[in-house]
Amino acid sequence: MTVYNAFYAQSGGVTAVINASACGVIETARQHGDKIGKVYAGRNGIIGALNEDLIDTSLESAEAIAALRHTPSGAFGSCRYKLKSLEANRAEYEKLIAVFKAHDIRYFFYNGGGDSADTCLKVSQLSEALGYPITAVHVPKTVDNDLPITDFCPGFGSVAKYVAVSIREAGFDVASMAATSTKIFVLEVMGRHAGWIAAAGGLAAEAEGDAPHIILFPEIPFEREAFLKRVDECVKKHGYCAIVASEGLKNEEGKFMAEAGTRDAFGHAQLGGVAPVIAQMIKDALGYKYHWAVADYLQRAARHIASKVDVDMAYATGKAAVEFALAGKHAVMPAIRRLPDGGFDIIEAPLSQVANVEKFMPREFITEDGLHITQACRDYLSPLIQGEDYPPYANGLPQYVKLKNVAVAKKLV
Amino acid sequence: MTVYNAFYAQSGGVTAVINASACGVIETARQHGDKIGKVYAGRNGIIGALNEDLIDTSLESAEAIAALRHTPSGAFGSCRYKLKSLEANRAEYEKLIAVFKAHDIRYFFYNGGGDSADTCLKVSQLSEALGYPITAVHVPKTVDNDLPITDFCPGFGSVAKYVAVSIREAGFDVASMAATSTKIFVLEVMGRHAGWIAAAGGLAAEAEGDAPHIILFPEIPFEREAFLKRVDECVKKHGYCAIVASEGLKNEEGKFMAEAGTRDAFGHAQLGGVAPVIAQMIKDALGYKYHWAVADYLQRAARHIASKVDVDMAYATGKAAVEFALAGKHAVMPAIRRLPDGGFDIIEAPLSQVANVEKFMPREFITEDGLHITQACRDYLSPLIQGEDYPPYANGLPQYVKLKNVAVAKKLV
Repeated sequence: MTVYNAFYAQSGGVTAVINASACGVIETARQHGDKIGKVYAGRNGIIGALNEDLIDTSLESAEAIAALRHTPSGAFGSCRYKLKSLEANRAEYEKLIAVFKAHDIRYFFYNGGGDSADTCLKVSQLSEALGYPITAVHVPKTVDNDLPITDFCPGFGSVAKYVAVSIREAGFDVASMAATSTKIFVLEVMGRHAGWIAAAGGLAAEAEGDAPHIILFPEIPFEREAFLKRVDECVKKHGYCAIVASEGLKNEEGKFMAEAGTRDAFGHAQLGGVAPVIAQMIKDALGYKYHWAVADYLQRAARHIASKVDVDMAYATGKAAVEFALAGKHAVMPAIRRLPDGGFDIIEAPLSQVANVEKFMPREFITEDGLHITQACRDYLSPLIQGEDYPPYANGLPQYVKLKNVAVAKKLV
Repeated sequence: MTVYNAFYAQSGGVTAVINASACGVIETARQHGDKIGKVYAGRNGIIGALNEDLIDTSLESAEAIAALRHTPSGAFGSCRYKLKSLEANRAEYEKLIAVFKAHDIRYFFYNGGGDSADTCLKVSQLSEALGYPITAVHVPKTVDNDLPITDFCPGFGSVAKYVAVSIREAGFDVASMAATSTKIFVLEVMGRHAGWIAAAGGLAAEAEGDAPHIILFPEIPFEREAFLKRVDECVKKHGYCAIVASEGLKNEEGKFMAEAGTRDAFGHAQLGGVAPVIAQMIKDALGYKYHWAVADYLQRAARHIASKVDVDMAYATGKAAVEFALAGKHAVMPAIRRLPDGGFDIIEAPLSQVANVEKFMPREFITEDGLHITQACRDYLSPLIQGEDYPPYANGLPQYVKLKNVAVAKKLV
């Protein structure tokens, strides 16, 4: 078997564990030097390939690559960039092929969500349309947890754990303060269109009265009166009310709540921040003192409290991607399958069934009143946050690796 | 020596480690059953004493009390309530004494910040003025780190660690996204009047180019032009800019920045949120895409990433408080002293020198340009975040204890 180089790139919003997938890809490729030469990473994702801006990962030590497993974010840079169809932008695809040819690249590993699965599929089709053989394998990643076939998406389990831990801790805090001070706490979490992340907060509520008491999902139009009634009941019963709110929460007209309320000094609608809108609404209607937090990037970057299952599966999908490619599999994605014993293994998903297909949260995962999660949802989510996988610390701080990221000499002009 | 009961209460904003102090008080008292009978905790702080609403901690198992060491928040409830002077509200003090007499309480342990130190001092004076012997010892606690004499305040070290870890992780995230998307990240942290917590974020910047690149302190009036210039330079040099901003940041007129910008739909000034104000200002002036987070209670409740030094010292001050009381020391506070080897021990601070004295951040801890911390600040802060002290987990979640908190039968009407 002739030796060819591989291309690896990270795409879209990064996560606490996408580098664990990179680690899986690179370490596995290094074990197969008889088939895979060098792994070239795209600097800032697919843009690195389009600009012939490749990183030579063979110049990184084994220790540095191993440290990717416990380093959040995208070590080679990511990008938000979606390739158009082959018909709409043939030149772009021809540039890709030219770069791959120039650097003897015949393996394409793309690490991302739904859009990148689509790009990966197009690259595989390109291979045939332009007559240059490329084995394209997609590596799943997205905190949004919206890829089909795979039981969950690497990146999601760690956000889920962070949100559940955080609302539990904040709930304890508010409970202490509620007698004379703060009675309301609102934690805003990611999820523009799907409530997976908000739902994960619900795992913290294991016993009657535990935080969070209310979860606000983007799938459920916000009903002001029913919500305020529930908040008031909760405060009267438990002394306080802790709420997890999706950033994508919408009102009954389908308008984002975060954009519905506030304006800056110039009258422009203020971007972001559903938490302060909800908190202020409660204060105005019920008079309760509030606090609110917006987790934003902290939630998806929180490698310090990553889920071990998530880290392991992120690595496993990276490893499986290389093994699939070496087995001649093409236009596929390693997907995670839940096993009856609560564990997980890896199966093969055809990219044609992954690209442009979104997995939504089932309605039966949300309680009938729309304000919490059901047992079915718990049963699904709980395995994803199992285990801790602490990074190493020095000087009181987690030791995350910054790679050298040396550029490969350009061969095209 | 006759056996008397003890009163313990938690005061003000709670922390990740105030329960570790409670653990130190109760475990140490239990070891001295020949002198201290029961430890009664005030339900919701000093209000519990004023209302004769006492909790019998002797009904909690040794395991439950031990678990306080790893449980954030105030297990008995806290309150925001400051006793007036003896002249202004003699009746309140007489009620306190009546409750103490009725329940044979002669030890008073008050766990809080500057206001509570003042209350504790008043109780000690009361003891003399009203002729009822009470040994009053204050146990230091405050994320604000503003108590004098003690090298640092238990609670602060864990917030410091959380903020440093979080901005490091978010910095890695933004660095990955910056080429085509987010270039600015603003993390808002606590600190209405002092920049201790914001300063702690600076610990994450260990090497040139590390996040955070800019820190905004309440002590330094915000200068828009100089700030924007620095942000722009930073993005041009490093590709992105990560900022830690104190909630108490003020403009040149001394007005809170968080209140300067946004208004709700009704035109009311929107409370809180200096991060979105700063982020939007950058966007308007420089056009860079931003993200922002507000950590709020998450930072002070984050027991999952508490500093081991902080936990140990929180416990040690609780333990020392009981030992001080048993040694007949009165109107004192166990203070933390930094040792030449980097460790800490406990010394005795007279409450008269603690109450109503605020420790400010020295100007020499902030760089001349007002936008970062100096080496002197690092040297002070770094020992406070050393070591991790992970709580136990089950089902992927930290196991924090909820006490039974059984009420003591009232003896007064």
